[in-house]
Amino acid sequence: MNEQYPSMLLKRAVGEMSKLPGIGQRTALRLVLSLLRQKPEVALALADSLTRLATEVHYCRECHNISDNDICDICANPARDRSLLCVVENIRGVMSIESTGMYKGLYHVLGGVISPMDGIGPGQLEMDSLVERVGRGEVKEVIIALNPTMEGDTTAFYIQRRLSNTPVLLTTLARGVNVGDDIEYTDEVTLGRSLTARIELKK
Amino acid sequence: MNEQYPSMLLKRAVGEMSKLPGIGQRTALRLVLSLLRQKPEVALALADSLTRLATEVHYCRECHNISDNDICDICANPARDRSLLCVVENIRGVMSIESTGMYKGLYHVLGGVISPMDGIGPGQLEMDSLVERVGRGEVKEVIIALNPTMEGDTTAFYIQRRLSNTPVLLTTLARGVNVGDDIEYTDEVTLGRSLTARIELKK
Repeated sequence: MNEQYPSMLLKRAVGEMSKLPGIGQRTALRLVLSLLRQKPEVALALADSLTRLATEVHYCRECHNISDNDICDICANPARDRSLLCVVENIRGVMSIESTGMYKGLYHVLGGVISPMDGIGPGQLEMDSLVERVGRGEVKEVIIALNPTMEGDTTAFYIQRRLSNTPVLLTTLARGVNVGDDIEYTDEVTLGRSLTARIELKK
Repeated sequence: MNEQYPSMLLKRAVGEMSKLPGIGQRTALRLVLSLLRQKPEVALALADSLTRLATEVHYCRECHNISDNDICDICANPARDRSLLCVVENIRGVMSIESTGMYKGLYHVLGGVISPMDGIGPGQLEMDSLVERVGRGEVKEVIIALNPTMEGDTTAFYIQRRLSNTPVLLTTLARGVNVGDDIEYTDEVTLGRSLTARIELKK
């Protein structure tokens, strides 16, 4: 729609909203009009939450995860196992692994993966701080939990090299058939890897 | 995802964002994290535009369209034909018809359609103000431009009854095969109506 907006306020709100990824002009207009149909408090609460997020959010100075304080709740928790360090690409990685409830170690958020196509090298990532953290000696195992993409694998390989002269154990997430998945519908690469990494059953 | 958020600020922003229609928790998280990856100014500009929209927006007291002033640009424009009044459901109706560039009359925004299922009767709509506007005598034709749904048709029928004792000409949008559309793929109701309302070609 190549339309004239009846109000500059509306036009601006739609413009700002459509800067969000995956939100086009049409969707932005629909979202903004839905806010207009509700009490002003709804739009004001959204605006306030975004303002506070943009101005008050912290990043943990240890693991670089998003946090309300200088040190995040996970790093500050004395019950977490300080010998385990899980390297993830971003905040969503932390949230996904936390949601399993199966991991009790610490995290290290890289803030991205190496991607020459996007001009992202190790220098833009929290790579030196990872090496420094491991160098302190408390960490015994580094679990690389990056996505199995070209960039993720490149980054994993880079970390492997950077940590090669440390005594730390390097591991990565097991690849295999999803729990509850049908073998018939598992892609061949995953199925192949799950065969190679087959697990012995206790008799 | 049933996760714990690493930050209450993040959790709140995601919560507010996911109140928008069609935006679930996962999408809201993706949108909010994309804002976090950018300069704070981007989130602040969005927040400011929503705040200003919620607090400063006006509705035209003539046609009830959204406006930056008490009287919208269309109603205030002396070049518009005051004898033509187009009745639409909402702001998007105005924007769609304006985008055709083919209409030079005024509008009347009902603010919805009659929908007993949703508890919306004529009393919640700008119906009395429509009758009052037409009663002033300047309007010669009322074009009903509502969606061809059960609710739209009910509303059109209601307007027809309310205006039956006025000398105004009542018209509705022509239904027919879309320009550029294939007859083969036109639904039978539309095709049927376009046959009934067939247009004579000049020889």
